[in-house]
Amino acid sequence: MARATFRPEVLAGPGLFGGMFELKGYTQPVLVSSVDGVGTKLKIALALDTFDTIGIDIVNHSVNDILTCGATPLFFLDYIAMGSLDSEIVKGIVYGLSKACQDVGCALIGGETAMMPGLYAGADFDLVGCIVGAVEKTDIITGQTIAPGDVILGLPSNGLHTNGYSLARKVLGESKGDLSQHYVELGKTLGEALLAPHRSYLKELKPFLPFIKGLSHITGGGFSGNVPRILPPNVTARFDTKAWEVPPLFRLIQIKGGIPRDEMYQVFNMGIGMVVVAAPDDACRIKERLPESVVIGEITRQQGADRIILDW
Amino acid sequence: MARATFRPEVLAGPGLFGGMFELKGYTQPVLVSSVDGVGTKLKIALALDTFDTIGIDIVNHSVNDILTCGATPLFFLDYIAMGSLDSEIVKGIVYGLSKACQDVGCALIGGETAMMPGLYAGADFDLVGCIVGAVEKTDIITGQTIAPGDVILGLPSNGLHTNGYSLARKVLGESKGDLSQHYVELGKTLGEALLAPHRSYLKELKPFLPFIKGLSHITGGGFSGNVPRILPPNVTARFDTKAWEVPPLFRLIQIKGGIPRDEMYQVFNMGIGMVVVAAPDDACRIKERLPESVVIGEITRQQGADRIILDW
Repeated sequence: MARATFRPEVLAGPGLFGGMFELKGYTQPVLVSSVDGVGTKLKIALALDTFDTIGIDIVNHSVNDILTCGATPLFFLDYIAMGSLDSEIVKGIVYGLSKACQDVGCALIGGETAMMPGLYAGADFDLVGCIVGAVEKTDIITGQTIAPGDVILGLPSNGLHTNGYSLARKVLGESKGDLSQHYVELGKTLGEALLAPHRSYLKELKPFLPFIKGLSHITGGGFSGNVPRILPPNVTARFDTKAWEVPPLFRLIQIKGGIPRDEMYQVFNMGIGMVVVAAPDDACRIKERLPESVVIGEITRQQGADRIILDW
Repeated sequence: MARATFRPEVLAGPGLFGGMFELKGYTQPVLVSSVDGVGTKLKIALALDTFDTIGIDIVNHSVNDILTCGATPLFFLDYIAMGSLDSEIVKGIVYGLSKACQDVGCALIGGETAMMPGLYAGADFDLVGCIVGAVEKTDIITGQTIAPGDVILGLPSNGLHTNGYSLARKVLGESKGDLSQHYVELGKTLGEALLAPHRSYLKELKPFLPFIKGLSHITGGGFSGNVPRILPPNVTARFDTKAWEVPPLFRLIQIKGGIPRDEMYQVFNMGIGMVVVAAPDDACRIKERLPESVVIGEITRQQGADRIILDW
């Protein structure tokens, strides 16, 4: 069952199975794309019967992924698979997808709702998003120019975003009872905290893209899984973990689960959703105009075999 | 777990989450995209422990979908979700994806393998593909110029392609025993017949795209679900179903399941995978140079409320 929502720059016409998007205004366009799901955050959405937020999650997650190359989004496609059609779930998800796409100026160009009896049990479903963005070839952010002395800024996350839910569910529980429990330290119920949507960093970072050397979206694998990918040879990213306050939700998981600190930083974003690397002057300018950004580390000559070091 | 396979025109670099693709050689590029799965054909693949063919299926299905607008593929991304990593399944699928992408000159630019414990039971998994292609704005095939007197050509399918598997499984069974049964009329086992990969029509049709007025990929919904989408107002597509031989697999399903003829044409491709509409002269030229194509109907002035008519 194909779905399509059109915005002005999307060409509509008969004969359309996939969506059409006219690419304009680029001299040497490089298309940047990403496909992903929201992991087992789905299970929390199901338990709480709330589906718009995971729609927002998958769009913003995807937007951030391609932003790391300097790309801004053109269009997005979604795939929702379920055992039999639950139109309330689809409606909720598509509402969230549309809202998030609108917020970041991305066309929700097409989608597919697949009914897969015998594959998805009960109300289970999966949600997949595919984003395509573009960047001028000369403006691609590669991380290649990162050098010792560069400053590492962090931008705060809005919760777990879309990673670490299997571990979080194991530690905190996932029944309706568990999720409706109010935690004083969270100032809300566990379910509300766990469903907080993945934020996008596009609007905040777009004006600064020309001054940024490297961007790392902290997703599955945490700091150690994501930051090394943007580093050129012979440098190490050194983080001062005392530079920012780890939000209560992460502390709760750590304490309740008795999880070693190292593992926490390998699974979760620990309060930092996007890592920005820039020359000191540029970092200073970004920090001034983006007060929520925090200096969380620096680039040094490579120290031993480590590509990243977390100072406690 | 992000995966990526690179071809020369794909820019590789650190900081890559999604893949990058440099768009070259277009004056007014329109990007055409599609996202889809292979439906419950997955279940047949699982029962036969054969996974490369569904990789081929999803690529060729997607290639055909965007071909209907006149677009040729640029790149493809896949998403595979399973309960826990089964690397044999992933390897098989990715082998098929790579092979099919290579065959159609499409970059397999990225992929995601998602582990979703508690969502996919046992060896169950889902496979999703997203394709992006391009077409010059002036070369888009819309169906708008289709007019009474135009000829409808059909190109043969290679089996069920990726549609109608829920019904086929219900009628013919899906146990290993059912699938290993040899049918004289099929000249092979049921499993072999059901797993036959979706063929792509790109190579065959590419030389003729400038002479084609409309293309309809016969997928879920059959003739009545797909052909009307490309028709402008006030015309009807009239098919002579005696013009081609319905392959034995469809007859087997029809007879064994006692399924009404109408329903068969609403669920299955019935032996025609792609419908091509062209002016009589052009159709003649296509037919000459593409001997497998068959004249299966004509465009008439609209007859009553019907957008398509099947003459038995």
